[in-house]
Amino acid sequence: MSNVSIGDIPTVEHPGWGRSVGLVQAQSVTFEQPFITDSGAIIHAPWTLAYETYGQLNAEHSNAILICHALSGDAHAAGKHQLADTKYGWCEPFIGPGRAFDTERYFVICSNILGGCSGSTGPASLHPHTGTAWGSRFPVLTINDLVRAQALLLDRLGIKQLLAVAGGSLGGMQALQWARTYGERVRGVIALATTARSSALTIALNATGRQAITNDPHWHGGDYYTGTPPAAGLATARRIGHISYLSEAALAAKFDRQWQEYPGPRWSHSAEFAVESYLEYQGRAFVQRFDANTYLIITRAMDYFDLSAEAGGLQAAFAHTQAQFFVASWSSDWLYPPSEAVQIVAAAEAAGRPTVYYAFESDRGHDSFLLNDDQLTPPLTEWLEELTLNATSL
Amino acid sequence: MSNVSIGDIPTVEHPGWGRSVGLVQAQSVTFEQPFITDSGAIIHAPWTLAYETYGQLNAEHSNAILICHALSGDAHAAGKHQLADTKYGWCEPFIGPGRAFDTERYFVICSNILGGCSGSTGPASLHPHTGTAWGSRFPVLTINDLVRAQALLLDRLGIKQLLAVAGGSLGGMQALQWARTYGERVRGVIALATTARSSALTIALNATGRQAITNDPHWHGGDYYTGTPPAAGLATARRIGHISYLSEAALAAKFDRQWQEYPGPRWSHSAEFAVESYLEYQGRAFVQRFDANTYLIITRAMDYFDLSAEAGGLQAAFAHTQAQFFVASWSSDWLYPPSEAVQIVAAAEAAGRPTVYYAFESDRGHDSFLLNDDQLTPPLTEWLEELTLNATSL
Repeated sequence: MSNVSIGDIPTVEHPGWGRSVGLVQAQSVTFEQPFITDSGAIIHAPWTLAYETYGQLNAEHSNAILICHALSGDAHAAGKHQLADTKYGWCEPFIGPGRAFDTERYFVICSNILGGCSGSTGPASLHPHTGTAWGSRFPVLTINDLVRAQALLLDRLGIKQLLAVAGGSLGGMQALQWARTYGERVRGVIALATTARSSALTIALNATGRQAITNDPHWHGGDYYTGTPPAAGLATARRIGHISYLSEAALAAKFDRQWQEYPGPRWSHSAEFAVESYLEYQGRAFVQRFDANTYLIITRAMDYFDLSAEAGGLQAAFAHTQAQFFVASWSSDWLYPPSEAVQIVAAAEAAGRPTVYYAFESDRGHDSFLLNDDQLTPPLTEWLEELTLNATSL
Repeated sequence: MSNVSIGDIPTVEHPGWGRSVGLVQAQSVTFEQPFITDSGAIIHAPWTLAYETYGQLNAEHSNAILICHALSGDAHAAGKHQLADTKYGWCEPFIGPGRAFDTERYFVICSNILGGCSGSTGPASLHPHTGTAWGSRFPVLTINDLVRAQALLLDRLGIKQLLAVAGGSLGGMQALQWARTYGERVRGVIALATTARSSALTIALNATGRQAITNDPHWHGGDYYTGTPPAAGLATARRIGHISYLSEAALAAKFDRQWQEYPGPRWSHSAEFAVESYLEYQGRAFVQRFDANTYLIITRAMDYFDLSAEAGGLQAAFAHTQAQFFVASWSSDWLYPPSEAVQIVAAAEAAGRPTVYYAFESDRGHDSFLLNDDQLTPPLTEWLEELTLNATSL
């Protein structure tokens, strides 16, 4: 792999663990065969997956780790594309020399999901037959569709078996689906702040966000790419999501009842409190970089996700893998509470899979899995080292 | 009072406690003086409060209990207006002969809040100077405004002192504000599933609902009464609220992952799961009876609510009342968690007020305060009886 880290930027944000991978390049792969979705729809060729890699694939091809991103993520997991970038990739604290996903040991891959809006083929991409955006023609996907597309990427990269597949939230669903669909291709599953079976609560929240988008008059049934996008609806959906990623304690610690500007009521319906202003800013930033149809399609894939129904019991879902499981939950995560992690752990253990479970304490809500590298790094580092000791390439 | 219960309908829904008040009449009172809001705005006369009463005011005028409703409530707390009504009032399990608010002992009053949309003057009412709906001209209110309007109603009814003021959620805020603003006019404060200081989380949720409304193109800055109302925005706001009133366990118990009709994915963005269909139905029903501008104004009043800032400490807020406090919280209420009830209790006790606190276990979320009459009725009944024994009219 030629396009690995080519720089060495000190990561002042995360002084605790290792170094940044530095400068990285966006990559992509294009497939010349159509992709048939679980729903029976066809994503016509050519279609593309965007990805990035960090570290070097070893001679035995036995040190590859696939990182699966969450709903708002993309392929840019670590480092910077340019020195002037103000932000690192979304998984920065965990990827780099001396970090949990140590790029001096492992070859780390992250791809933007199929249906995404950050370089992979999705609703905003041009339909190869018509030259116009897919829009409403882009099919609803399943988590299994996302994983099958990733497997095709690994085929291209010459990786028959992953040392590990890792992800939090939607990314964790993909990691678990890997164990179900390609059990023989993965030696370790790292499932963080996630579930094997989407709950009524997460469906309710997703559906409310979708309703905000589809009620936006600019949505136009999904075919808005030649006009104004449904930005207001998407911003509302993002705000609902954003609140669900936080905890009451996290919001109280960060904002409490601070006013944004004028220190008292202005008797308006506009943002007056700092927390309102923050959510408004985050919503505006999100709609600049995210596509509303991707939001619809991927939240629906999350709703449909139920490994136990798919396999006839969650234990059965893990019956055809030799993978070891690393599962973690955070106490204040009310979206994917510890009780749902416990179900994953119980099923993996019942299926005879070596499993470790960390029920972390945190008051930062669902986002803890990205924020609390201090909690996650030591056990994850150790677990990956042991996994490596046992690993042999196929 | 002539217009108390005039029938006797068996309440099959709530067989455990007492009987229904039966048939009741909607009432209203009109004020001929303008109401000056805390923001300095004028609600011009004549303005109206809708209310209902149940039971008889005694000769000493010492048995009156004011019930304050929550965000989606109204003055119709108990009984039916007509025999054919399919539903009782929103507080039915607690009001009637033999119930906690025993109408053979107490004179129970419930009024629709100022700014409401169920008979009281609010944004949808006609401005007396122009004959057109108040709309955007209707001022943002405070909880204190709602309470001051209620006090004017009590003046009209000849009630100088309340035996108790009671409410849950927004209603509980009003009950606490009574202790602050009219400490001498209330002997007992019943604050359920509420807070004395709105949190960043509740502000964030309210603001997201408001954004959904103000982004609806039909909102027209609040002046939509001659056209189409912002129903889609209000429905989204209601859905956000509705989810926040429930718990993960309550949603799982009621819906889990049931499909609504077709037993499998239809690969659509419409309601497919039962929980989606339920929220959609509830949203549609809500917009039939509720006004979007009232939603905006009252959620803003909730955001502003901070008794401790108003009084210079929560203990100081309760320094000028002789009232006793009955406080209750429910374990799965993540909107107004037990930790916030504990703050009320600590402040009331520090102010020397006799206080009882019930930290109930429940998996029904915030709505527990309305649903769990089995938990609330026995201690509340006993507390009110003791309060009555100590009561002397002024």
